[in-house]
Amino acid sequence: MSTDKEPTATRGSLRLAPNCIELEEQKAKLPRQFVNFTFYHARPEWRTVAEDDKKRSKEEFINAVDEFRKQLLIHSYSTIGLRTNVDFMIWRIGSELDPIQEMTSRLNHTQMAKYLEPAQSFLSMTKRSMYIDKDNPEHVEDRLHIIPGKSDYLFVYPFVKTREWYSRSADQRQEMMDEHIRIGTKYRSVKLHTTYSFGLDDQEFVVAFETDNPADFLDLVQELRETKASSYTLRDTPMFTCRQRTLAECLEALG
Amino acid sequence: MSTDKEPTATRGSLRLAPNCIELEEQKAKLPRQFVNFTFYHARPEWRTVAEDDKKRSKEEFINAVDEFRKQLLIHSYSTIGLRTNVDFMIWRIGSELDPIQEMTSRLNHTQMAKYLEPAQSFLSMTKRSMYIDKDNPEHVEDRLHIIPGKSDYLFVYPFVKTREWYSRSADQRQEMMDEHIRIGTKYRSVKLHTTYSFGLDDQEFVVAFETDNPADFLDLVQELRETKASSYTLRDTPMFTCRQRTLAECLEALG
Amino acid sequence: MSTDKEPTATRGSLRLAPNCIELEEQKAKLPRQFVNFTFYHARPEWRTVAEDDKKRSKEEFINAVDEFRKQLLIHSYSTIGLRTNVDFMIWRIGSELDPIQEMTSRLNHTQMAKYLEPAQSFLSMTKRSMYIDKDNPEHVEDRLHIIPGKSDYLFVYPFVKTREWYSRSADQRQEMMDEHIRIGTKYRSVKLHTTYSFGLDDQEFVVAFETDNPADFLDLVQELRETKASSYTLRDTPMFTCRQRTLAECLEALG
Amino acid sequence: MSTDKEPTATRGSLRLAPNCIELEEQKAKLPRQFVNFTFYHARPEWRTVAEDDKKRSKEEFINAVDEFRKQLLIHSYSTIGLRTNVDFMIWRIGSELDPIQEMTSRLNHTQMAKYLEPAQSFLSMTKRSMYIDKDNPEHVEDRLHIIPGKSDYLFVYPFVKTREWYSRSADQRQEMMDEHIRIGTKYRSVKLHTTYSFGLDDQEFVVAFETDNPADFLDLVQELRETKASSYTLRDTPMFTCRQRTLAECLEALG
Amino acid sequence: MSTDKEPTATRGSLRLAPNCIELEEQKAKLPRQFVNFTFYHARPEWRTVAEDDKKRSKEEFINAVDEFRKQLLIHSYSTIGLRTNVDFMIWRIGSELDPIQEMTSRLNHTQMAKYLEPAQSFLSMTKRSMYIDKDNPEHVEDRLHIIPGKSDYLFVYPFVKTREWYSRSADQRQEMMDEHIRIGTKYRSVKLHTTYSFGLDDQEFVVAFETDNPADFLDLVQELRETKASSYTLRDTPMFTCRQRTLAECLEALG
Repeated sequence: MSTDKEPTATRGSLRLAPNCIELEEQKAKLPRQFVNFTFYHARPEWRTVAEDDKKRSKEEFINAVDEFRKQLLIHSYSTIGLRTNVDFMIWRIGSELDPIQEMTSRLNHTQMAKYLEPAQSFLSMTKRSMYIDKDNPEHVEDRLHIIPGKSDYLFVYPFVKTREWYSRSADQRQEMMDEHIRIGTKYRSVKLHTTYSFGLDDQEFVVAFETDNPADFLDLVQELRETKASSYTLRDTPMFTCRQRTLAECLEALG
Repeated sequence: MSTDKEPTATRGSLRLAPNCIELEEQKAKLPRQFVNFTFYHARPEWRTVAEDDKKRSKEEFINAVDEFRKQLLIHSYSTIGLRTNVDFMIWRIGSELDPIQEMTSRLNHTQMAKYLEPAQSFLSMTKRSMYIDKDNPEHVEDRLHIIPGKSDYLFVYPFVKTREWYSRSADQRQEMMDEHIRIGTKYRSVKLHTTYSFGLDDQEFVVAFETDNPADFLDLVQELRETKASSYTLRDTPMFTCRQRTLAECLEALG
Repeated sequence: MSTDKEPTATRGSLRLAPNCIELEEQKAKLPRQFVNFTFYHARPEWRTVAEDDKKRSKEEFINAVDEFRKQLLIHSYSTIGLRTNVDFMIWRIGSELDPIQEMTSRLNHTQMAKYLEPAQSFLSMTKRSMYIDKDNPEHVEDRLHIIPGKSDYLFVYPFVKTREWYSRSADQRQEMMDEHIRIGTKYRSVKLHTTYSFGLDDQEFVVAFETDNPADFLDLVQELRETKASSYTLRDTPMFTCRQRTLAECLEALG
Repeated sequence: MSTDKEPTATRGSLRLAPNCIELEEQKAKLPRQFVNFTFYHARPEWRTVAEDDKKRSKEEFINAVDEFRKQLLIHSYSTIGLRTNVDFMIWRIGSELDPIQEMTSRLNHTQMAKYLEPAQSFLSMTKRSMYIDKDNPEHVEDRLHIIPGKSDYLFVYPFVKTREWYSRSADQRQEMMDEHIRIGTKYRSVKLHTTYSFGLDDQEFVVAFETDNPADFLDLVQELRETKASSYTLRDTPMFTCRQRTLAECLEALG
Repeated sequence: MSTDKEPTATRGSLRLAPNCIELEEQKAKLPRQFVNFTFYHARPEWRTVAEDDKKRSKEEFINAVDEFRKQLLIHSYSTIGLRTNVDFMIWRIGSELDPIQEMTSRLNHTQMAKYLEPAQSFLSMTKRSMYIDKDNPEHVEDRLHIIPGKSDYLFVYPFVKTREWYSRSADQRQEMMDEHIRIGTKYRSVKLHTTYSFGLDDQEFVVAFETDNPADFLDLVQELRETKASSYTLRDTPMFTCRQRTLAECLEALG
């Protein structure tokens, strides 16, 4: 598991190599990004629409989304058949919140809006993370620039730690995260994106794992259950298995 | 974070400067205000309304709201795209409950009422009359009077403390609140409004944070997790990220 | 806070004045009453009904309710604007359950039944209470005959104590209730009705507070959080703020 | 409270009289029965049906139920006005599951199925065949055979014990159950039916109390809160107060 | 209860017979399978469809399912009358996720999709490829390969262990599982399938028990409550009692 978690200011200088410090400085200058995962569900009325109207509606919806690809990084995933009540998901990343709202407003004005219900969403921000991956010095470079959506599958869920976790010392938490990361590195095919929701949405974190191999991810999550950090989990559901597909494919699967 | 938390009467006089005591006495004489946050959701049927009818309906709704601006302080926020199931929020403040009920009744008689579902609301009171109207030249913001709705973003959530909190001594609680406030003061861009719901609604408090910078607020909430007071939180969800917009803009975004 | 809680058989004779014993005997002979609070919500379809039909429907509904005023004590409250998903509440008290069912059946046959959804209800009974108000000997007489619905506001919520509460000795519980009642008596404007739901509905008690001054009630509930008894609360939500109104006023507010 | 709880095999012989042992042996040979409680709710569309169609629909529904009275013991209860979201309940008892499914399928083919929503159900089994049909002259109620549905009221709820309960020794549990039963026997008007749902439905037990006097049942449940066994209750809601009525009466009350 | 739980690698060699070790090695090489249980609910609108259209719709739906029997093992179960809100269940097993999504998309394009709501689903994986098709003459059931769907009843539920379980040593857990399995082996008629959902869906495991005798299963689950392992259960609901039926029979029961 490659992570995008970064060195923290609380680390002693012994563990922070000079180039890491530079990296930290670089990061501090990097603007933060807003992240939004919205899961849509087709209302049954969609299936009563005439084929021609369906076709036009889908094209209009896809075009409306495309209008925002200049302002936002946008990826789409199909959840058809993998979970009830959600049919597809749109992952949006941008440096401002307004385009996310504008895009949603634009989609609300399409014909498909009559038939699509946003069933669940997670709002978060990227941030300088405070946990370090001490075993992988090479990893560092990549973590400044993450290219999302490169794998077939995305596994997304909200995450809330118990308040007891936050009463542990920084050292104790670092030690527990080291164990966590050590296990993660055994699963090279799995890439973790951690984003932050404190105060913005019901969860503390939104975690999103990319991989081409669901079995690897399942084994990783099961193995992580045995870590000490795992016992400080308050909530980590609902969990969404998402298959990367073009938006056209996502809409076609709605029936 | 500037707070509108008053020093409590249980604090020793050593810590309360004389002018603070005077301030407290002034406050005790001020009447209290009712506060209501109502989140609305557009039913899918709204999107089947003809454009002309939509336009008229929106105008009628806006006018109906405006009728009550003499009796109530009213602010509107768009939540489109930031959370499913709520599309906009109306924040109302008044010295009586009746106008809040009358306004809701009035809105129920508009055409838009067919298509708008109040999806969530929070009812609370101030412990003193603290909000004033910025458009009223006679009103001056000072330590006793706050002009609400001056920032781009409002973050609102209900808050319930564990019963264990209430079994701690007044001194212990004051000490924990002091730590809490100390952290808050590091985030100057964030302004906290605490109102009280004991017995009036499901939560104990409604907390509303105003800021122009969501990242500051996120960092503040994350930092507050490490305080002792935080471990006495029983519930602090759902959390709503709200973008200040005119009511016309809020309605336009519904599609 | 005046309470309708009565002396218990477990009290020693020293604390029970002779006239109290007589009172107890009187009470034992008093039949118990059934109590039902039903909260109604208008479906959006109501707002599509023609004005004339609305008028007739409302009159028919009011007349149907009035038919049962001989058999049941009936009070109505508007909750419009104070909480989503409930619009008004009907409080019914009677010596038999059958009229409560017959009245509901009768209402189901009205035109308005198509548009009204009973969204929440609480079923309970009155009973000889076991807690005593040792500080208010004069209170006793009134507590045999309570006249409900004399205040502008009613605050209603279900109440469940932790099972640990029931494992405390009668003396310990009495002591905690004494503290509870002592605080209540400071709020003279607030009157408490406690009724019992054990086995009849999901809660153990339904508590209903009457007052003309919501702020007093809020302060009372907040102060009660600091009592020992409060730590034995398992559930006390949802909480409903209800404004006494004629049924005609309640229906008019639906739009 | 008379109970249909059998003395357990773990009880010492000193406490089991010889005829009890024989009784136990008899019971072990008796086949077991399936029990199903289904609560129905009328959709608002029901109230838009023409009176003639309503009449025919109700007759057809009643006839469809009657077809299964040879294979199943069937009792009906009205819950109108006593709890929102459920209007009536059908209690079915049979030696096989298939007739329960066949009857539901048959009801799904009636006109009323368009307007009736099964809102809640409990599936369970007896540990022996204990219910008999009072209309069958060959059937005699004795300690092994219970005729259900002989009282005006039925109180039904699901029941789950804490896992800690199951870690107590058989003797400890027996002692706690003895206390429980001792209190129950004080309420002669209340008759308890315990059935078992382990693995078949979300609860461990479905408990159903029959009585003509709701106040007795309420007092019993309140008194049972003070037993040791009560502290091992994990869940005992939702609780349904059900009034025995003919199916025709149940349907008439729907409006 | 025969189980498909493998002896774990943590067990000492003394307890693993040589042929078991070989078996383990064989298993490790076997590919894994995806498993999906989807529960469907007929919307009330289904009952308004003309008989002829119903017939055609059912045939089309059955044919659409049959198209996927080459790529997926598919079994159907009726839940009519045994639980509200779900009417039938389709159990799918395959070596790839894509056919599960393609089949769902195909079903969404049928006429019945207008009337069927997927109400609940569970997604999981085997830890090895264990299921085979009984209709394929080349497939032989042995210790590595299980033919699913050979019993009248299937009992399905999600399963989450407490985090405390995962902090117990491998030996302690093995000892607890040994007790669990020892009890299971007393119920020869019950066959357990355990599949894994870590990270893929809200539960950790999906457990599915096959038997022709529901009473045996009920007794097994009740007896398992007394094991030590049982005290580490965090969630094991909702529980579904499913009756194996052809898809035609499942659809016929919808009305």
